[in-house]
Amino acid sequence: MATEATSTDAPEAYETLLDRYERISYLGTASGVLSWDQQVMMPEDGTPARSKQLSTLASLRHELLTDDEIGSLLSELEDADLGDKQAASVREIRREHERADAVPRELVEEISETSSEALPAWEEAKENDDFETFEPYLEKHVDLKREYAEHIDPDRDPYEVLFEDYEPWLSFERAEEILAELRETLVPMIDAIRESDADLATDTFEGEWDADVQEELSREILSTIGYDWDRGRLDTSSHPFTSGNQFDCRVTTRFDESDPVGAMTSTIHEFGHAQYNLGLPQGEFGTPLGESRDLSVHESQSRLWENHVGRSRPFWELLTPIVKDHFPEFDGTPREAYEAANQVYEDNLIRVEADELTYHLHIVIRFEIERDLVRGDLEVADVPEVWNDKYEEYLGIRPETDSEGCLQDIHWSHGNFGYFPTYSLGSVMAAQLFSAADEEIDDLEGKIREGEFGPLHEWLSENVHAHGKQYRTNDLVVRATGEDFVADHFTEYVEEKYGELYGL
Amino acid sequence: MATEATSTDAPEAYETLLDRYERISYLGTASGVLSWDQQVMMPEDGTPARSKQLSTLASLRHELLTDDEIGSLLSELEDADLGDKQAASVREIRREHERADAVPRELVEEISETSSEALPAWEEAKENDDFETFEPYLEKHVDLKREYAEHIDPDRDPYEVLFEDYEPWLSFERAEEILAELRETLVPMIDAIRESDADLATDTFEGEWDADVQEELSREILSTIGYDWDRGRLDTSSHPFTSGNQFDCRVTTRFDESDPVGAMTSTIHEFGHAQYNLGLPQGEFGTPLGESRDLSVHESQSRLWENHVGRSRPFWELLTPIVKDHFPEFDGTPREAYEAANQVYEDNLIRVEADELTYHLHIVIRFEIERDLVRGDLEVADVPEVWNDKYEEYLGIRPETDSEGCLQDIHWSHGNFGYFPTYSLGSVMAAQLFSAADEEIDDLEGKIREGEFGPLHEWLSENVHAHGKQYRTNDLVVRATGEDFVADHFTEYVEEKYGELYGL
Repeated sequence: MATEATSTDAPEAYETLLDRYERISYLGTASGVLSWDQQVMMPEDGTPARSKQLSTLASLRHELLTDDEIGSLLSELEDADLGDKQAASVREIRREHERADAVPRELVEEISETSSEALPAWEEAKENDDFETFEPYLEKHVDLKREYAEHIDPDRDPYEVLFEDYEPWLSFERAEEILAELRETLVPMIDAIRESDADLATDTFEGEWDADVQEELSREILSTIGYDWDRGRLDTSSHPFTSGNQFDCRVTTRFDESDPVGAMTSTIHEFGHAQYNLGLPQGEFGTPLGESRDLSVHESQSRLWENHVGRSRPFWELLTPIVKDHFPEFDGTPREAYEAANQVYEDNLIRVEADELTYHLHIVIRFEIERDLVRGDLEVADVPEVWNDKYEEYLGIRPETDSEGCLQDIHWSHGNFGYFPTYSLGSVMAAQLFSAADEEIDDLEGKIREGEFGPLHEWLSENVHAHGKQYRTNDLVVRATGEDFVADHFTEYVEEKYGELYGL
Repeated sequence: MATEATSTDAPEAYETLLDRYERISYLGTASGVLSWDQQVMMPEDGTPARSKQLSTLASLRHELLTDDEIGSLLSELEDADLGDKQAASVREIRREHERADAVPRELVEEISETSSEALPAWEEAKENDDFETFEPYLEKHVDLKREYAEHIDPDRDPYEVLFEDYEPWLSFERAEEILAELRETLVPMIDAIRESDADLATDTFEGEWDADVQEELSREILSTIGYDWDRGRLDTSSHPFTSGNQFDCRVTTRFDESDPVGAMTSTIHEFGHAQYNLGLPQGEFGTPLGESRDLSVHESQSRLWENHVGRSRPFWELLTPIVKDHFPEFDGTPREAYEAANQVYEDNLIRVEADELTYHLHIVIRFEIERDLVRGDLEVADVPEVWNDKYEEYLGIRPETDSEGCLQDIHWSHGNFGYFPTYSLGSVMAAQLFSAADEEIDDLEGKIREGEFGPLHEWLSENVHAHGKQYRTNDLVVRATGEDFVADHFTEYVEEKYGELYGL
C-alpha cells in the first residue's frame, strides 16, 4: 500500500500505475529471496531448478514492466498535476519502463546467454592464466553492450549510457571528474607512503583466529552497532553480500582464520548496506519511494560504516576490549589495532584485498579500461598489456600473470561495464555524508567511542534512507550535506588520516 | 525442457501449451522456496513483505493458468492425436485450468481473507478453550466452500468436489470404503489391545535427550537410509515438513528432549516425502510428468518409510547401535526399542501425538464430521458434542475441553475440507505398496537389517516416483501392485504386527 504517495487526491491513472508497479516490485524482491537462498542455503545440485525459477520471474517482471498499459498510464500522467512524491514515483517508473522497452528482448536474452557461457570461460582462463580463453567472450560482451546502448540512445557515448544502468541520476561528467581527482590525489599520496619510514604495528593480528569464535564476534559487533535481529540474519557465503528490504534484510560474511580484520570490516560493510534497506519507509514497500537510490548511494552507506566508523580510532577503542572478550590471548592495544586495520599494502595486486587508499586506483584502472573498450578506443586483445602498464604507472607494481591482473574480477564475464566506478563514487560520497553528520552531531567521535550509535543512525535515516528514490542522486547529496557531490571531503579525510598514520 | 513428452511429433499446440505451463509450474516451485524460507529462515518481522511476494506470485500463477490462450490450446488439443504421456500432460493441465477457471476470483479472495481472519480466531479459541470464538469463522468457511464446490459442479455432492481438490483422480467411493474399513478393523483391535495384558518396554526411551545430539543422529539416519545431501538439507521448524523438487528437496524436523523417537520417526517420514520429489524425472521438471501425484500418494511414500521401514523390527536392529553411538548411556535392546516405538497409547486425545493405529480413528472422526458439515447434515454449533461423542465411541476416551477436542487442528481454520482423509489413505496405500515391494525384492527384511536400501529405492522409483502425474491414482497403484487400491494389506499388516506385539 502506497499510503504516503497516494494520500493527496492523485489522478486515477496514478493509482493504477502504482498498483501495476507494486507487482513488478514484489517480483523483484521475491527474486532477491531466491538468489539469497541460492548463495547461502541451496544444496549444490539445485541450480537447474533455481535457474528456471529465476528466469521465469525475470521474464514476467520484464513483461509487466513493458506492458502497453504502463506506457498508456505514463502518457496520461505526462502533464498531470502531481505532488512532489507522486512526480518522483512516476519519474522512476517511467525511466524503468522506457529502458526496458527500448531494448529488444532477443538482445537481453543474448546478453544473458553470453554471460552464462562467459562465466565458465572466465573461470577457466583465470585458473590457467590464459586470457585467450576469455577473450572472445569479452569481445562479444563489448559488442552486445554497445548494441544495447545504441538501442537506448544512439546519439550518446555508449559507456555513459551503460553507466546510467547503475547510476540513472548521477551525471557522468561529475563521476569522471571525481575519479580523475582520486587518481591525482592518491597516486602521489601512495608514493609518499611508500617512502615514509613510519613503522605501523602491522603484525597486531598475526596468528590463528578460530572461525566459530570470529562468528560470535561478528554477531556481537552487529549487535553493538545496532543491527535489528528481528529483521535480519548473519550467514556465511563465499562472497559477502546483503539482500532484502525494509522488513527483512540479511547480511553474509566469510571467515579467514589468518585475517580476523577482514571478517570484522566486511561484516560492518554489509551492515551499512542493510541499514539502508531497513531504513526505507515501510509504508512505501513496493513503490519507488520504498526502494533504495542507486549503487553509489548504497555503497556510500556501507563504506561510511566500514571506513568512517569501523576503521576509525574511536571505534577501535570501543572494539578492542570486545575482541579480547572473545579472544583472550589477543594483546593488541587500540592504537596498534587501528594501525594494523589501516595499513597501506605495498605490493597487493588484488582489488578485493586492497586497503582503503589503493582500492580506488584498482577502480580507476578498470574504469579507464572499460570506458575505452566500450568507446572503441581500446581493442580487447590489448587489455592485458594496458592493464599491466596502468598498474605500474599508478601503483608501482606490475602483475606477472593475467590471473593476478585483468582476469581477477568476475564483473566483465557478466558484461557489466559501468559498474566498477560506483564502488569509488560510494566511498567518496561516504566521506561527504560523514563529514556533514559530524558537523551536525555533537561529539560524534566520543559517541562512537562509547558505542552510542543512535544519533548517527537517525541522521542517516532522516537524510538518506527515508527518502527512497524521491530525489535524484546529486539532489539527495545536496539536501543531506548542503553542497554538490564532490571529492573534497574524501581528500581531506585521507590526507588527515594517512598523514597522521604515516607522518606525511 | 520437456524432452520426453515432446520427443514424438507432437502438435504445435501441445508444444505451446507445455511452454505456457512450464512458467506456471516454475512460479509454483518458486513460491515453495519462499514458503520454506518463511518457515525456516526468515527473521520474525519479515512477514508483511513475504505476504506481498507470495500473494503476487499466486495471483500471477492464477492469471497465467486461466489465460484464454490456455483455454484455446486445450480446445485445439481435444481431439488431437497424442502419445500416452502427452495425453496425460494435457489431462492434468486441463483439469488445473478448468478448476481455476470455474471459481470466480472474488470467491477465491474471500476464502483467502476468511482464512487470514479465521487463523487468529482459531488460535484464540484454542488458547481459551472457547469454541464460540471460532464458530462464526468455521460457519463462513463451510458456506464459502459449499459455494466454491457449486461453481465447480452444482450437480454433485459438494464434499466430494472438495475432496477432489486434493485427490483429483481417486474415486471418492473407494476412499469412503477404505475409511469405513479402517474403522471396522481398528475399533475392535484397539479395544483388544486395551484389554491385553502384554507388557511392552514402554519406558525404553525415558530420560533426557540432548537436542544437538539428536540432530546429529537424525543426520546419520538420513545418510543411512540414503538421503542425497547434494540435493537436500535438514533444518528445524515448528512443524516438520518437506519442500522442493527433483533438484533440491529439503526436510525439516523438530527435537523434543523427552521424546527422541518423535524426531527419528518424523525425520524418516519427511525423508519419504523428499525421496518422492527427488525421484521425479529431472527432464520433466516444469511439466505434469515431473510433478508428484496427489496427497495420498505423497503420504504413502512418507508412511512407507516411517512405518514399514522406520518402525519395523529389522530397522530397529540396524538403528539401535547407531543410537548408542550418539547416546552411549542408552541401554535399550532392539526389541525394547521396537516395542517402545510401536506402543499404542490408551488415552491420547491429540492426533499429531497418536500411534500408528489410533491415528486413523482420529482421521475417521474428522472425515465424518467435515463431510456431514459440508453436506449440510451437521450444524457447526453441534461440532464439539459430536466430536466428543465420536471419540468416546471409537477410542473410548472423551475430551474434557474443546482445545483438546475439535479445536486441536489448524486445517479447518484454512477452510481445508477433504484434506484429512488423505493422511489415512496414504497409510493404507503405503501398506499395499510395501507388500508388493516385499514380494518382488528378495529378502527385503534382511536388507533393511543390513542397511541395504538400494533395492527398495529402485522399486519405489520405478513404480511410483518416475511416473510423475502420468497415471491416475488407482492406475498407478494397479501398475505398481497388480491390484486396485484396497485396505486389505493395511489390515493384514496391523493384524500381524500388533497381534505379535500385544499377543492378540
